[in-house]
Amino acid sequence: MTPTIDLNSDLGEGYGAWKMGDDDTMLTLVSSANVACGFHAGDPLTILATLRAAAARGVAVGAHVSYPDRVGFGRRPMDVTSDELTADVIYQIGALQGLAQAAGTRVTYVKPHGALYNTIAGDARQADAVIAGIRAVDPALVLMGLAGAPVLARAQAAGLATVAEAFADRAYTPQGTLVSRREAGAVLHDPDQIAARMLRLATEGVIEAVDGSVLPLAAQSICVHGDSPDAVSMARCIRERLMAAGVAITAFAPAGAA
Amino acid sequence: MTPTIDLNSDLGEGYGAWKMGDDDTMLTLVSSANVACGFHAGDPLTILATLRAAAARGVAVGAHVSYPDRVGFGRRPMDVTSDELTADVIYQIGALQGLAQAAGTRVTYVKPHGALYNTIAGDARQADAVIAGIRAVDPALVLMGLAGAPVLARAQAAGLATVAEAFADRAYTPQGTLVSRREAGAVLHDPDQIAARMLRLATEGVIEAVDGSVLPLAAQSICVHGDSPDAVSMARCIRERLMAAGVAITAFAPAGAA
Amino acid sequence: MTPTIDLNSDLGEGYGAWKMGDDDTMLTLVSSANVACGFHAGDPLTILATLRAAAARGVAVGAHVSYPDRVGFGRRPMDVTSDELTADVIYQIGALQGLAQAAGTRVTYVKPHGALYNTIAGDARQADAVIAGIRAVDPALVLMGLAGAPVLARAQAAGLATVAEAFADRAYTPQGTLVSRREAGAVLHDPDQIAARMLRLATEGVIEAVDGSVLPLAAQSICVHGDSPDAVSMARCIRERLMAAGVAITAFAPAGAA
Amino acid sequence: MTPTIDLNSDLGEGYGAWKMGDDDTMLTLVSSANVACGFHAGDPLTILATLRAAAARGVAVGAHVSYPDRVGFGRRPMDVTSDELTADVIYQIGALQGLAQAAGTRVTYVKPHGALYNTIAGDARQADAVIAGIRAVDPALVLMGLAGAPVLARAQAAGLATVAEAFADRAYTPQGTLVSRREAGAVLHDPDQIAARMLRLATEGVIEAVDGSVLPLAAQSICVHGDSPDAVSMARCIRERLMAAGVAITAFAPAGAA
Repeated sequence: MTPTIDLNSDLGEGYGAWKMGDDDTMLTLVSSANVACGFHAGDPLTILATLRAAAARGVAVGAHVSYPDRVGFGRRPMDVTSDELTADVIYQIGALQGLAQAAGTRVTYVKPHGALYNTIAGDARQADAVIAGIRAVDPALVLMGLAGAPVLARAQAAGLATVAEAFADRAYTPQGTLVSRREAGAVLHDPDQIAARMLRLATEGVIEAVDGSVLPLAAQSICVHGDSPDAVSMARCIRERLMAAGVAITAFAPAGAA
Repeated sequence: MTPTIDLNSDLGEGYGAWKMGDDDTMLTLVSSANVACGFHAGDPLTILATLRAAAARGVAVGAHVSYPDRVGFGRRPMDVTSDELTADVIYQIGALQGLAQAAGTRVTYVKPHGALYNTIAGDARQADAVIAGIRAVDPALVLMGLAGAPVLARAQAAGLATVAEAFADRAYTPQGTLVSRREAGAVLHDPDQIAARMLRLATEGVIEAVDGSVLPLAAQSICVHGDSPDAVSMARCIRERLMAAGVAITAFAPAGAA
Repeated sequence: MTPTIDLNSDLGEGYGAWKMGDDDTMLTLVSSANVACGFHAGDPLTILATLRAAAARGVAVGAHVSYPDRVGFGRRPMDVTSDELTADVIYQIGALQGLAQAAGTRVTYVKPHGALYNTIAGDARQADAVIAGIRAVDPALVLMGLAGAPVLARAQAAGLATVAEAFADRAYTPQGTLVSRREAGAVLHDPDQIAARMLRLATEGVIEAVDGSVLPLAAQSICVHGDSPDAVSMARCIRERLMAAGVAITAFAPAGAA
Repeated sequence: MTPTIDLNSDLGEGYGAWKMGDDDTMLTLVSSANVACGFHAGDPLTILATLRAAAARGVAVGAHVSYPDRVGFGRRPMDVTSDELTADVIYQIGALQGLAQAAGTRVTYVKPHGALYNTIAGDARQADAVIAGIRAVDPALVLMGLAGAPVLARAQAAGLATVAEAFADRAYTPQGTLVSRREAGAVLHDPDQIAARMLRLATEGVIEAVDGSVLPLAAQSICVHGDSPDAVSMARCIRERLMAAGVAITAFAPAGAA
């Protein structure tokens, strides 16, 4: 049986006159696009262009929902109320669905962005608020989250399908969590090393932790960055290594599927 | 045959801690709610509350789309490009559709707000951009516009259904256009006079112009304001006068209809 | 010697078409106005009008700086970096200084708003960032903060003058801190009781805690709310009781002083 | 006598995570920096960094004030009221003054940005509103505007000093106005040609129009773009050509001067 895995990246993150990343090229490399919804990045026109390009490439589309913090790019934790967060999530998914409809594609999953992503990984209250927002719009939407994070089990218990992702360029602790960015070695830079790690993840379901131990990591998707200068070459390196080894790069929830 | 007419009002126009109008009461009086979509007013939580109240009252919901100008409440003309405007309209309709889905209702029409409303009444380029945005999301959405304005014919030519509205508290020229707000007498204040005018509009299809001439005005909806101090009493007066005369107050596009 | 105290209130908190509070009347009652700077509330035109009214009344002006969170009215804790916070504080003070100059008055103090106020009361990192921002614009600006909060000592150690304030309508613990809003009885509502408490504070320097104990509280200013429906009557009641007892209501840092 | 001219460029136009242009390098080439004030671009932290770099390089600082339109980068005409515009200008100048104070420099001039720049070149109402805003903050601030535009005479009549600028890469009509960007040849691309034109402007006070005629153009400053990919090389080419010919590149209003 052919091993398969999804490659996802954050796209549509320009804003007005400001550009970020090379969406057109990234869309030739990934199978899923986490598209900004306007709260941390993405104006309607930029988002629409990204969605059209994703549709043309057959790349699946997810709503990259965020706290309302454009100047902070959604990277700053905010202590929002549950009701605010649920409504914000619904609004963003709806906006992206409208634009996706116009672009000839559809939203199949939701991946919270930045500080919201990190917060709900462990914060049950905010996690539940996000889950409630997704369910209120469309219970068939899939939640993408950090492999091993409690939010995935909460979402499943609430009736949502989930997809666990690993981060291509991050080091892991022996417990399967990400090494904090505050620690040396948290972010990996060697494309060959990263590609080799992701190949092992895709084919063996394991990842090597910082202490050299090898641990199981169940991930159906790999997140590759889209906004750094060498994002494209990194993504290409991972994609080629995986494909050369016979791994199929496929969206877990292809655009157009039910 | 019972004469029928729709009463519409701008609702959901609070923003965060700021309130505007008395949505709950207005929703007992009107048959259609033009709900803010976040660009001139309305944050997700406020919008969601308004949509839930509209759903509970069986009031039809329209997307009150605007230029992106919150501090100016969407009242300032902006020379946006057609592509920007189309994408902005799609985004706003989509966001409202998402919230409406969560509130157990649906968006059945689109009414541009403020400066955008006035601009597209006569500006073909911006009118076409709005029409394109509506069609891209859902061609079954109805466009509400000023009775007699060229935008309605353009929308029909593009395949959209339209609804023409009259303004309850505005004076009309002998040509059937609104008297400019810069002229004395442009805005009417006497509830009895206004109610009598609207009754005649609903039953005879005519309105008396400022020069005393009586002219035909084909309007399927009447706009009553929701944000002024005496908005509620004015709306109630109009509603009661119409109903006492046997006019049915009914949304032109009831929530839940195809 | 005549006992004196300052009365302060949050003003200028409208935004565009949205109003909040009755600034004109409040400015006849307070001696210091904490004026919004645009980050949680206040657009330039609204702020300018408030500043002109404050200048006309001889009311001192403080910069009511906030996190950048308009939809949340600055009430949601945000984990901003120190550099961001310092720059945000400078920007807001500068903007208010420009408008104050145009209005014929000047900014004499800084009072952080909402979640920022609460956070810096005890969070040394964010407190230092705010203090650095104030000092960078004008080291002669006074920092207003919660009586007893560590931020005041930090500011003094950094060379800033400070003013401690008490909250008129809040209950105090025996330790001199505010009873949490999550607890019953945290907010007082009886104008007579509140006025009596503030009179005792102004003349004896003590306040009665929730357990009936009487504790010293060194406060040079009393905060009265400006945005609730009965804010005006509450402020008037406090003012009149204080004045009737011979307490002078005077800004700690009169507009125009060095 | 050494001929002198000012070189100015738009800087500080990043926003949060989004970058624009290469401010550090441009500040080695220009004598005046038009620094964004937050309404079309520039968050406080980005602005502060640009101001510190300008201070370190001895580059003069101007307030690059704009309509409140971040998503449109201030490029879209807006029909704001005079009072709104005046207050918006004051707010932006004040904010920049505060940040400049923190950066060890000061604001010496004001250059409206984008659509506001173009509108006030000929629109007397909006021009007067901008002039009123500048005067209200500091009548010693200089207004920079398009050489030959009526706004400069209006500003002078109101008591403001003015500086006229030419655009390095724009073609001119025989009447001394800019060729519209909608016409072919409106924007020049050849660095040598552009540098030669600017040298002639600086030394002879003339420019060659599109029809080959040579016309007088009184400009004390030359605008070079800061945000295009080859902005740096273009600015460097102009600077070097001017200096090689003995023209001094000097701010018309040096930072620190009264």
